[in-house]
Amino acid sequence: MKKTAKTTKEGLRREIREAVRLVREKNPMAPSITNTVTINLVANAQLAVGGSAAMVYLADEGEAMAALGGAMYINMGTLMPFYAETLPRTVKALAEQQKPWVVDPVGIGVGGLRTSLLLGFRTDKPTIIRGNASEIIALAELWELDSGKKSGGVRGVDATDPVEAARTAAVSLARHTGGAVAVSGPIDLVTDGKSIAFAEGGSKFLPMITGAGCSLGGVAAVYACVAAPFVAALTATAIYNFAGETAEKIAKGPASFQTAFLDALYRATPEEVGAQPFTLETAGK
Amino acid sequence: MKKTAKTTKEGLRREIREAVRLVREKNPMAPSITNTVTINLVANAQLAVGGSAAMVYLADEGEAMAALGGAMYINMGTLMPFYAETLPRTVKALAEQQKPWVVDPVGIGVGGLRTSLLLGFRTDKPTIIRGNASEIIALAELWELDSGKKSGGVRGVDATDPVEAARTAAVSLARHTGGAVAVSGPIDLVTDGKSIAFAEGGSKFLPMITGAGCSLGGVAAVYACVAAPFVAALTATAIYNFAGETAEKIAKGPASFQTAFLDALYRATPEEVGAQPFTLETAGK
Amino acid sequence: MKKTAKTTKEGLRREIREAVRLVREKNPMAPSITNTVTINLVANAQLAVGGSAAMVYLADEGEAMAALGGAMYINMGTLMPFYAETLPRTVKALAEQQKPWVVDPVGIGVGGLRTSLLLGFRTDKPTIIRGNASEIIALAELWELDSGKKSGGVRGVDATDPVEAARTAAVSLARHTGGAVAVSGPIDLVTDGKSIAFAEGGSKFLPMITGAGCSLGGVAAVYACVAAPFVAALTATAIYNFAGETAEKIAKGPASFQTAFLDALYRATPEEVGAQPFTLETAGK
Repeated sequence: MKKTAKTTKEGLRREIREAVRLVREKNPMAPSITNTVTINLVANAQLAVGGSAAMVYLADEGEAMAALGGAMYINMGTLMPFYAETLPRTVKALAEQQKPWVVDPVGIGVGGLRTSLLLGFRTDKPTIIRGNASEIIALAELWELDSGKKSGGVRGVDATDPVEAARTAAVSLARHTGGAVAVSGPIDLVTDGKSIAFAEGGSKFLPMITGAGCSLGGVAAVYACVAAPFVAALTATAIYNFAGETAEKIAKGPASFQTAFLDALYRATPEEVGAQPFTLETAGK
Repeated sequence: MKKTAKTTKEGLRREIREAVRLVREKNPMAPSITNTVTINLVANAQLAVGGSAAMVYLADEGEAMAALGGAMYINMGTLMPFYAETLPRTVKALAEQQKPWVVDPVGIGVGGLRTSLLLGFRTDKPTIIRGNASEIIALAELWELDSGKKSGGVRGVDATDPVEAARTAAVSLARHTGGAVAVSGPIDLVTDGKSIAFAEGGSKFLPMITGAGCSLGGVAAVYACVAAPFVAALTATAIYNFAGETAEKIAKGPASFQTAFLDALYRATPEEVGAQPFTLETAGK
Repeated sequence: MKKTAKTTKEGLRREIREAVRLVREKNPMAPSITNTVTINLVANAQLAVGGSAAMVYLADEGEAMAALGGAMYINMGTLMPFYAETLPRTVKALAEQQKPWVVDPVGIGVGGLRTSLLLGFRTDKPTIIRGNASEIIALAELWELDSGKKSGGVRGVDATDPVEAARTAAVSLARHTGGAVAVSGPIDLVTDGKSIAFAEGGSKFLPMITGAGCSLGGVAAVYACVAAPFVAALTATAIYNFAGETAEKIAKGPASFQTAFLDALYRATPEEVGAQPFTLETAGK
């Protein structure tokens, strides 16, 4: 997971292709603790890109999964009371095992347990943070990092801020964790705190199926089994953008879109994913 | 939410068209506490008609959702122990916030917690009750209202009584709550205790996909964000009947039906939904 | 449920056709306590073959379901803390009611609660055990029966051993419970401890959709409402193999496969399922 001296578009494209290929070859397992709304889609998306899935709720199972998986996905939706024990013990085990993990701070701002757990992750740092712009800004504020603005307020699982508005927050979070941050939106933003990639593509239908964002987080965890955090987040974003475009061409609505989207995740080649358009900027100071 | 002096078919059709249009325009959020079997379909159906979804399990999150949402959906399937606290606190918060909410008494008769919670809803009244005929009759009996007959017994999530058999129970329940009751079946019955609408349409495949009824309840909650309870329940019933008919024409079985059904919910226009056939009767004394 | 004096292929084919036909005719309910990842697919597969579904989590609801259902399905994925009470009380109720039940030991080896519950099932015996080869071998080892080899270790929900490797373990388990064991793989193995059927068919896509195995277990429970354990397990295996072959012909990836697969389960006739190829061997001593 050594970084190249200088991040270049061509270097990133090569690493994206390699991540897609390695996952198809090695079938790495990225276990999840995730919400009950979209848990099936998370698993099926992980399988479609070539990974392996396993979902748990209990503390000692979270610890076992931290040892067994190559990386882990933790989603903050539909919390249950026993998560108060499960999540801290799981992320401690991930730290001990030096395994990467992805957090999706869905619902940030709603309820005491979620706030308490997310505050704990300020110290027990996730490797990749994935969310929409509102969630990323809210997390930077919760962690008292530079968020660039005041949060637009909680609005369930929907984005209310444009991705560009989360640029400062995303860079702050990435610098704090030393990992990567992926912000989903019409234009996606992925950063490691030094470089920022803006990725195009996707589909108008993606926000109309529940779990598009959650499953992207699960897929990022699969790629984090074989690639550095920034590359893993960017590969997940790129394959989602590619599959979204592909699926929209034949979709008649959100449900036929979801079917075509998962099929497209399954059929996407390293070359197709590596060719997805993105621009690269320096994050600045 | 002022009632027109006299409920007429033409007036209702106008209000149905308006409800469909307003939801597409305003994207209102109707959060849910709902079972894990069909939670994904509930969310996707709510999104397909133009609403926004958020699912929670914890008491303080239920209270937060009562404040954030325009209306709420509570489904009694797959209860977990902590619902003993979550549901009463959530419905209290809904009452304080004067927010409408829909209850689906699925599984009524099975287990002590469900019975205890449903008994509590006799006082903390739901705005819309949605169920099949057996469930509606059982709820009227549990609340010691006129059910018109003795219940046909519990049978999981399946209907064992024809909708017409639930007419007395539905009217009793609507008069008790001051809201609306929707009974799903080959012919659907929707009443506010004064008028009864019998709606036609739908598909033989609807009872063959799990969650057809649950998701109708979630969609009724979305419409309850913008319309009076009777109109909201009737609009949800009408769009389900329209989408069911549309989907059956291209379905090869229940799974391709579900895909086509969600696509049809997404594409249905106010005019198409408002034109769905129904008859209107006076409920009588 | 009286056994024929001698198990023959023609006799089994007749019983398979009869099981498929009886379920379509009687619509028997096979309730489940099952994981949140694939719970929707389990229910929809049970409905597609003609059964009825109901899912619960609480102890007294498990007991109620043991009384109401014709057979029950218990899947060990995504355990929650209260399962420590729910599962033992449910299986006691099943024993008292003399109702058949299917267990799927998914995740065996992960976590203390799962191990403790599965150890308890050594005494409170399931009627049908369904798993992949690794799970079947691990369960035989956990129960200190002849497993034929040492387990290949835990690997989430994936098979790491070929089905043939689980032959000894499957026969040991079936002889211990007096019921049947179904091992899923490219070639499926079904045994009652005396005869072993090896069934062909299915699809490369089946392992690429999450819940193919879980839902097979749920469907086996539906058939166990109307047929002896060995026939029920073999019928579920045969209809899955038939539907898998049918669906693969039109699938463009795993998601369109899943849709076509459920449609094919719905449309499969007794003759088509009864005609699925299998070979029959004597289990030996």
